Amino acid sequence: MLQDLNNNTICAPATVAGQGAVAVIRVSGAEALDIVSKIFVSPKGRKLADMKGYTMCFGSIMKGVGEVLDDVVLSVYRAPHSYTGEDMVEISSHASPYIVAEILDLLVLYGCRYAEPGEFTKRAFLNGKMDLAQAEAVADVIASETEAAHRIALKQLKGGFSQELALMRRQMLKLVSLMELELDFSEEDVQFADRTQLKDLLKATTDHIAGLVSSFKVGNAIKNGVPVAIVGATNTGKSTLLNALLGEDRAIVSSIAGTTRDTIEDTMNVGGILFRFIDTAGIRRTMETIEIAGIERTYFKLKQASVVMLVLDYTRQDDFEDALKTVSSNINSAEQSLIILLNKIDEKPVAVTSLFEGRDPESITPEENIDKVCDVVSDLAGALGLSPVAILPISAKNQTGLDELRTVLVSSQSVVNVSTESVLVSNRRHFIALKEAYESLLKASVSLTENQPTDLVTQDIRDALYSLGSIVGEVSTDEVLDSIFKNFCIGK
Amino acid sequence: MLQDLNNNTICAPATVAGQGAVAVIRVSGAEALDIVSKIFVSPKGRKLADMKGYTMCFGSIMKGVGEVLDDVVLSVYRAPHSYTGEDMVEISSHASPYIVAEILDLLVLYGCRYAEPGEFTKRAFLNGKMDLAQAEAVADVIASETEAAHRIALKQLKGGFSQELALMRRQMLKLVSLMELELDFSEEDVQFADRTQLKDLLKATTDHIAGLVSSFKVGNAIKNGVPVAIVGATNTGKSTLLNALLGEDRAIVSSIAGTTRDTIEDTMNVGGILFRFIDTAGIRRTMETIEIAGIERTYFKLKQASVVMLVLDYTRQDDFEDALKTVSSNINSAEQSLIILLNKIDEKPVAVTSLFEGRDPESITPEENIDKVCDVVSDLAGALGLSPVAILPISAKNQTGLDELRTVLVSSQSVVNVSTESVLVSNRRHFIALKEAYESLLKASVSLTENQPTDLVTQDIRDALYSLGSIVGEVSTDEVLDSIFKNFCIGK
Repeated sequence: MLQDLNNNTICAPATVAGQGAVAVIRVSGAEALDIVSKIFVSPKGRKLADMKGYTMCFGSIMKGVGEVLDDVVLSVYRAPHSYTGEDMVEISSHASPYIVAEILDLLVLYGCRYAEPGEFTKRAFLNGKMDLAQAEAVADVIASETEAAHRIALKQLKGGFSQELALMRRQMLKLVSLMELELDFSEEDVQFADRTQLKDLLKATTDHIAGLVSSFKVGNAIKNGVPVAIVGATNTGKSTLLNALLGEDRAIVSSIAGTTRDTIEDTMNVGGILFRFIDTAGIRRTMETIEIAGIERTYFKLKQASVVMLVLDYTRQDDFEDALKTVSSNINSAEQSLIILLNKIDEKPVAVTSLFEGRDPESITPEENIDKVCDVVSDLAGALGLSPVAILPISAKNQTGLDELRTVLVSSQSVVNVSTESVLVSNRRHFIALKEAYESLLKASVSLTENQPTDLVTQDIRDALYSLGSIVGEVSTDEVLDSIFKNFCIGK
Repeated sequence: MLQDLNNNTICAPATVAGQGAVAVIRVSGAEALDIVSKIFVSPKGRKLADMKGYTMCFGSIMKGVGEVLDDVVLSVYRAPHSYTGEDMVEISSHASPYIVAEILDLLVLYGCRYAEPGEFTKRAFLNGKMDLAQAEAVADVIASETEAAHRIALKQLKGGFSQELALMRRQMLKLVSLMELELDFSEEDVQFADRTQLKDLLKATTDHIAGLVSSFKVGNAIKNGVPVAIVGATNTGKSTLLNALLGEDRAIVSSIAGTTRDTIEDTMNVGGILFRFIDTAGIRRTMETIEIAGIERTYFKLKQASVVMLVLDYTRQDDFEDALKTVSSNINSAEQSLIILLNKIDEKPVAVTSLFEGRDPESITPEENIDKVCDVVSDLAGALGLSPVAILPISAKNQTGLDELRTVLVSSQSVVNVSTESVLVSNRRHFIALKEAYESLLKASVSLTENQPTDLVTQDIRDALYSLGSIVGEVSTDEVLDSIFKNFCIGK
């Protein structure tokens, strides 16, 4: 809590910018009521200074003497019973960019300062209204697109994760205190702590943290989407497929401004699971040097994905084997699901009749053709040791077979039931801190087993405690705080 | 007031959609508190039914037994002291599209109905909280992009326009009442109303309405922007100029969703005046039949514009005369301002040295060249009877000369000082109703002068009263209301 509170009164719009019914402007700080009262007139002559917390007042924001800028409703909060823990006023005006800009200008004119991104939540943290993990959850709650992501974020916001950490830290503190007591009496060579009990407790804590660390894969997939790489030779229709899959959803994603993410990914909520689709550069055999880099990135993305969607061109059977070989040498079948898509089934494949020995080409139906080509793909995949979860004939152009694809996508993911009980780590900063804590505890375990000096063991446990403390912000630096809150939106 | 109030409790998001700090969901109707209380839990056990108007309550929206959807603040308004005049609850949640959608679903589950666009304001009108002109002003206040537009809209919202209309209607009612009194005593052939006084009063009212009608040109320009047509031959750089002028502003305009306008125009606020730039198809001499339609539209737009910006290509002197001739035969110099732009001054003009008799071509500076070509344009324009307000050398590509252009644009408009005193009509529906009233009064005037029967005169005045009454909604049909409120945003 050594942070400089920079104790000015701050203001910012709290609602998304644009034209709408209502916009809310937040003012927080010791002078909040005083500054707002300078630009506000109540028709009933009410004074802001007399207003209690959690009450509202109708009136006008005045631009100059006798000139009304807008009619508004003020919501008054009194310290410490507010979001930031400070005196706060929320001004609800008409949602016109012009009016919002004018009100902010007036507030600044009378002594407010524009808030930094996330500064309201930062103040809430610094004033002890929430810990750091909870503060971070605020951004996650806002950004959650699925029920599962929302549940993780809300549990963290309500302090569920922090409680879990607090419990572990209490156990570890008890452990380390007993051991440090021994150090004080080191000349007498006593052991206050039963070594077996110590080892058990250390193991239990280490296992618990290992569980949290490993929950990150699922937590991260829920928060940021299950990564799905779309790979295939050039011109097999990968981008058309991506567009067809995303459809209107893409527009919705693109219109979301001010999120906590650095880039807007093409994500889609399918059956309650968020998928993050990664379009890759087409793979081809002969290529210029300049293309190699692109292909390297494709391989990299392929390896990072949880699901690999290989797109084959139904009309180009000759390319099948190369594409499958490329996938087979870059996929980890144990951890990644492979879905093979036979695209362009609306077109007529070349030379497919050779697969139907002795049949009159005229008698072969398109359905038979497609089935036969699927069999060919299946055989090729099997020969290369690949076990696709599905081989689906589709037409991205005509949007045929996409429902089946969505079903396969969802079933490729083991159902993650985020109950209100389980804690899943979804924040990369927490993940890293937990891994550090885990490694420190492992070292402590080894030292304990090897009967190393007690102070070596306690130092490792202290390191683990420090790592865990950094998650909730009991130890934090300006740098850490800045990097967390700079990704918040203005007004939060 | 024969409207069916459709008296359900309605709900809608009142803030712009997207991820942000705060979203507000509005609930209005007799059951508002009752329905919200079914999904809300206050940690202090507060009951919504006990809450007074203009007070707030912190708590959680519950999704199911024991499961919190979000922590929110409720703002409670009690009928008739609310926006709609009904009981209202505003739910301030985290601005996550997921949370907002879930809360709306819960509200509907427990008996709310999704609000139609503008339904909250429509209820405010039907419940007598505001008249129709004020209700329409709500949408204008939200859409206002300049101080002047905002002032017109706010004055109308605060009832300034309605008061002006009420005053005129009282005068006219007095007039018509006196005349109708005569009709009751018609057999006795008395005249209660002094004919000279009647004529004077009628003239004053007619003049007043004529003033309001003629204010629409300015009011509309302030609200929708001064129309500026950009014309010129093909490939003179009209679109490049438009892009250069709009710059970042275009992005801002495009990002505004849910406005009351049918289309998004390329508008820009220059020095407090809103300009609406209209790009036109390039004019060329020889053209295919199919292009004629496009050119006809160009002429039409040119005639509608208040400012015509003719773009000439500095490197194509041969085209100057044709372009100027086209403008001269389509412009109304008395009412339209002409600005001539000599574009592409970054390039080298062809054969310009012929203008410098006897000079060594090497000694001619680019600046001299440009000045000389401007003189040529000036002479050509003069010969065609054109009086451009300016001839400006620019380079749209390099953004040279654009500041000068902006200055000229602003000074081409007589400064419209929208004081808090003057009433400007900016709504086309009001404009049409006022014109109808004006025409009825003119007819009444003529009848009065010609000593026509009194009932003919009074009928015309009654017609004018009806037209004026339709503006504030004293007479209105479902159809009129629907056409007004359908353009509102959801939640307003």
